Amino acid sequence: MKKLTRQRLHEIIFEADTKAGKIFDEFLLVFILLSVLIVILDSVQSFKEAVKNTFYILEWIFTIIFTIEYVTRIYVTRKPLKYIFSFYGLIDLLAIVPTYLSLLFIGAKTMVVIRIIRLLRVFRILKLMQFMRATEYLVASIKRSQYKILVFMMFISLIVVVLGSLVYLVEGPEHGFNSIPKSIYWAIVTLTTVGYGDISPQTVAGQAIASIVMLIGYAIIAVPTGIITSELIQGHKSKSTNTQVCHHCHDSDHVDDAHFCKTCGRALHEDEEKKI
Amino acid sequence: MKKLTRQRLHEIIFEADTKAGKIFDEFLLVFILLSVLIVILDSVQSFKEAVKNTFYILEWIFTIIFTIEYVTRIYVTRKPLKYIFSFYGLIDLLAIVPTYLSLLFIGAKTMVVIRIIRLLRVFRILKLMQFMRATEYLVASIKRSQYKILVFMMFISLIVVVLGSLVYLVEGPEHGFNSIPKSIYWAIVTLTTVGYGDISPQTVAGQAIASIVMLIGYAIIAVPTGIITSELIQGHKSKSTNTQVCHHCHDSDHVDDAHFCKTCGRALHEDEEKKI
Amino acid sequence: MKKLTRQRLHEIIFEADTKAGKIFDEFLLVFILLSVLIVILDSVQSFKEAVKNTFYILEWIFTIIFTIEYVTRIYVTRKPLKYIFSFYGLIDLLAIVPTYLSLLFIGAKTMVVIRIIRLLRVFRILKLMQFMRATEYLVASIKRSQYKILVFMMFISLIVVVLGSLVYLVEGPEHGFNSIPKSIYWAIVTLTTVGYGDISPQTVAGQAIASIVMLIGYAIIAVPTGIITSELIQGHKSKSTNTQVCHHCHDSDHVDDAHFCKTCGRALHEDEEKKI
Amino acid sequence: MKKLTRQRLHEIIFEADTKAGKIFDEFLLVFILLSVLIVILDSVQSFKEAVKNTFYILEWIFTIIFTIEYVTRIYVTRKPLKYIFSFYGLIDLLAIVPTYLSLLFIGAKTMVVIRIIRLLRVFRILKLMQFMRATEYLVASIKRSQYKILVFMMFISLIVVVLGSLVYLVEGPEHGFNSIPKSIYWAIVTLTTVGYGDISPQTVAGQAIASIVMLIGYAIIAVPTGIITSELIQGHKSKSTNTQVCHHCHDSDHVDDAHFCKTCGRALHEDEEKKI
Repeated sequence: MKKLTRQRLHEIIFEADTKAGKIFDEFLLVFILLSVLIVILDSVQSFKEAVKNTFYILEWIFTIIFTIEYVTRIYVTRKPLKYIFSFYGLIDLLAIVPTYLSLLFIGAKTMVVIRIIRLLRVFRILKLMQFMRATEYLVASIKRSQYKILVFMMFISLIVVVLGSLVYLVEGPEHGFNSIPKSIYWAIVTLTTVGYGDISPQTVAGQAIASIVMLIGYAIIAVPTGIITSELIQGHKSKSTNTQVCHHCHDSDHVDDAHFCKTCGRALHEDEEKKI
Repeated sequence: MKKLTRQRLHEIIFEADTKAGKIFDEFLLVFILLSVLIVILDSVQSFKEAVKNTFYILEWIFTIIFTIEYVTRIYVTRKPLKYIFSFYGLIDLLAIVPTYLSLLFIGAKTMVVIRIIRLLRVFRILKLMQFMRATEYLVASIKRSQYKILVFMMFISLIVVVLGSLVYLVEGPEHGFNSIPKSIYWAIVTLTTVGYGDISPQTVAGQAIASIVMLIGYAIIAVPTGIITSELIQGHKSKSTNTQVCHHCHDSDHVDDAHFCKTCGRALHEDEEKKI
Repeated sequence: MKKLTRQRLHEIIFEADTKAGKIFDEFLLVFILLSVLIVILDSVQSFKEAVKNTFYILEWIFTIIFTIEYVTRIYVTRKPLKYIFSFYGLIDLLAIVPTYLSLLFIGAKTMVVIRIIRLLRVFRILKLMQFMRATEYLVASIKRSQYKILVFMMFISLIVVVLGSLVYLVEGPEHGFNSIPKSIYWAIVTLTTVGYGDISPQTVAGQAIASIVMLIGYAIIAVPTGIITSELIQGHKSKSTNTQVCHHCHDSDHVDDAHFCKTCGRALHEDEEKKI
Repeated sequence: MKKLTRQRLHEIIFEADTKAGKIFDEFLLVFILLSVLIVILDSVQSFKEAVKNTFYILEWIFTIIFTIEYVTRIYVTRKPLKYIFSFYGLIDLLAIVPTYLSLLFIGAKTMVVIRIIRLLRVFRILKLMQFMRATEYLVASIKRSQYKILVFMMFISLIVVVLGSLVYLVEGPEHGFNSIPKSIYWAIVTLTTVGYGDISPQTVAGQAIASIVMLIGYAIIAVPTGIITSELIQGHKSKSTNTQVCHHCHDSDHVDDAHFCKTCGRALHEDEEKKI
């Protein structure tokens, strides 16, 4: 009996196939989002002063809920250690630790961001079927193009370092370019077309180099887009290539107008077999 | 006789297939654009003072025209209630109500934006054939990729919340990052490469995180572009391949203007078979 | 003899197939670029003061060259009026008129921009073969997707007008949003991710709307990109579909693995004809 | 024996196929990155003051290492002159010269950027197989679309020059547009959606033109993206389609792992024919 409960709990907490499992996931999702929302609103001075106690109490309620959840997760898994040191295991722990630590260290602002990391737990809902496939599809496409993207990133780094240094030389500290790292920062701001305008070139030469950085940044965005797009289309195609399966050797992935199996040479359809 | 007029009016007002219907739509389009233009210009102080009375009179003329149109629409539809509570029904009502309300509440600035909503009525002209197909095509492509786009949006939200909070921690209120919501706003401004520059990181650590946000924003734009593009191409393909199947060899994927099977050479349609 | 010279001149000036024609085009290109460069540099105060006379003389030299060219073009064409009122004919005239007019109206600054329009003449070199094809290809792709792009533009306009007005309402004149046209300008600056930062929302509600505008602008760029890309790929394909031409009915555009003409049903290759 | 060592050294230094060669490349990569990092950090005033001597010594250590490497490279190549005047030969020289020159000319800030150029040596690691292919693939796609990109660039230049001049005329020096080159700079900042905000139009006409520049910049990015994407997809296809042709029916376009013809069912390779 106890065995069954444990397995049942495992299904509910870790999986999303049963109805109870889906409801559990949805509740958890709401709790996570609410608890993150509280962390965010807590940072607004006016809010904090108005409802400080409410936030404090809610934070503890969510922490206790998450603690119960965490302990249950450890209890129901066959291999508790494996779960504890898994990616989600650590995030689950990080979701509850800061609140307990805040009892010891009063006013530790750093805790805020650690509490925000709870948001990563939201990604658990990706195990829902439709998201799963979409995510896998996107990740697979990005993975397949990793070397191309790396070459692109190297090229970007090179432009940013070399042209950033050049502008440092041309503009100098008097126009805000007071070190190469800052100039590289400016080059990134410019190349990515963000353009804060907190530092901007004042000399003609500096503006000429800036124009080059901008035009490169504007045109070169086509490259990662092209890479990802062509991989996504590729992914589409390999998915859409057809569903014929040879009756003899069970080979699949035939092209759309194939009449004979490309692997064993026998007819893919019986009626054609007779024709021969 | 009266019955006929009503049906005829329905054709003119709700459809765009007859000549009268097209002319009606074009007039309406001009009226809508003009009335919106007046609302826009009315907000410019110098204009308002110069021609206030003209604007006031024009606004009433357009409102009366739209009121007549609205009443006629209710009159000619078989199911008036269905129209009234439909999307366009509500927008048609919103187009006339603010002017009448302004008689009661003098100087209600909020009315301005409600009057702008008239612009949504312009989308009615999408019922014109060419736009219809283009719109359907775009909407279908976006719908097909909805889960991928949702995963992408979740990822964007995560980056914006986590990195925004991190910068809030690093920079602090003294550099303008005085709450997490404001830091998240900054992160959105940066990630989308808008870059107002009203708040920008001043510390080295803040600028380093900002650089990461920028580069992510710059590179990751490739993902939605890739998704939409691959869906649009997919849409293109499924539209241009054709469903004809040869009666003799069952070969498919014929081009649109094929009359004979590309594999066995026999006629695709029986009537053409006779022609030979 | 005169007839011949005229025809020969026509070939040289209007075409780019003969060697003389190419050399003429190249010289003209250099002259145009130089004359535009002078207009640009002439606007820089320090340059102007240093070399004013040189610029003045050069400007007259180029004007005389272009005048001779213009007169010759009129002389060699069969239908001078058609040339004069053609797009390039008008631009050729605009290239020389401002300098002559400057004798009458001293210091007319407006002339400067008209003189810049000379630059449009550079597009003449597109008649060189490689550019021709590339241009046609791009223009054809953009034309084919015109309705989709128009729908997209309407959607952009709607967002910009409605959300711009909303921010005008929320922020008001005290934060720089002093009229709806200015708020629409701000919305365009934000949606296109330019983000000058000269006007930026200060209230929480304004920043929330701004965030929505930014995210829409960031995500929606995928749509025109997808449209153009899918059309360009389509163009590629229709170009790559094969070169087989039926020996019997001269129909082309067969798919790559067609054995029989899709129009008349006869074999595309003689050897297959025998096989039947 | 000496011959062997030289050839062996050549393999290690110039190639990346042997294990020693890979280790050498990896060490070199670390040295290059470290030496560039020192140049960058050296420009930060606070760092410089704290550890000036360390940086000075490290710089000399790296210079000596690179000098030894450079001399060895000259020693092991068959054609030293060809190497010396090759692209990488010159960069290798530029990597060591500035440090020696700094002995003669004290405080030459220009040297800094020349030392940064060392970073280009990093591209040597592209000879590693996976990067090689990715790079070639990207470069080939860009090359194939060069004319289209050139036409696009011409169009961009035209917009930037003509609309930049127009805004110069409309806004004038009192709003920061004090010369045409500066206005062109502004137009580039706007078109590429960078938007520093250091110069921005103040008049209604100026803001209207700016809006047009922004919308063009926002929409037109689709064109290079479309060009590159369609070329990348083209590249994908030509790579993944296969050159096998059936000996019997001459059908082609078989998928990569096809052993039998998809049209007539016979073996694609004779040796496999025997296997049956």
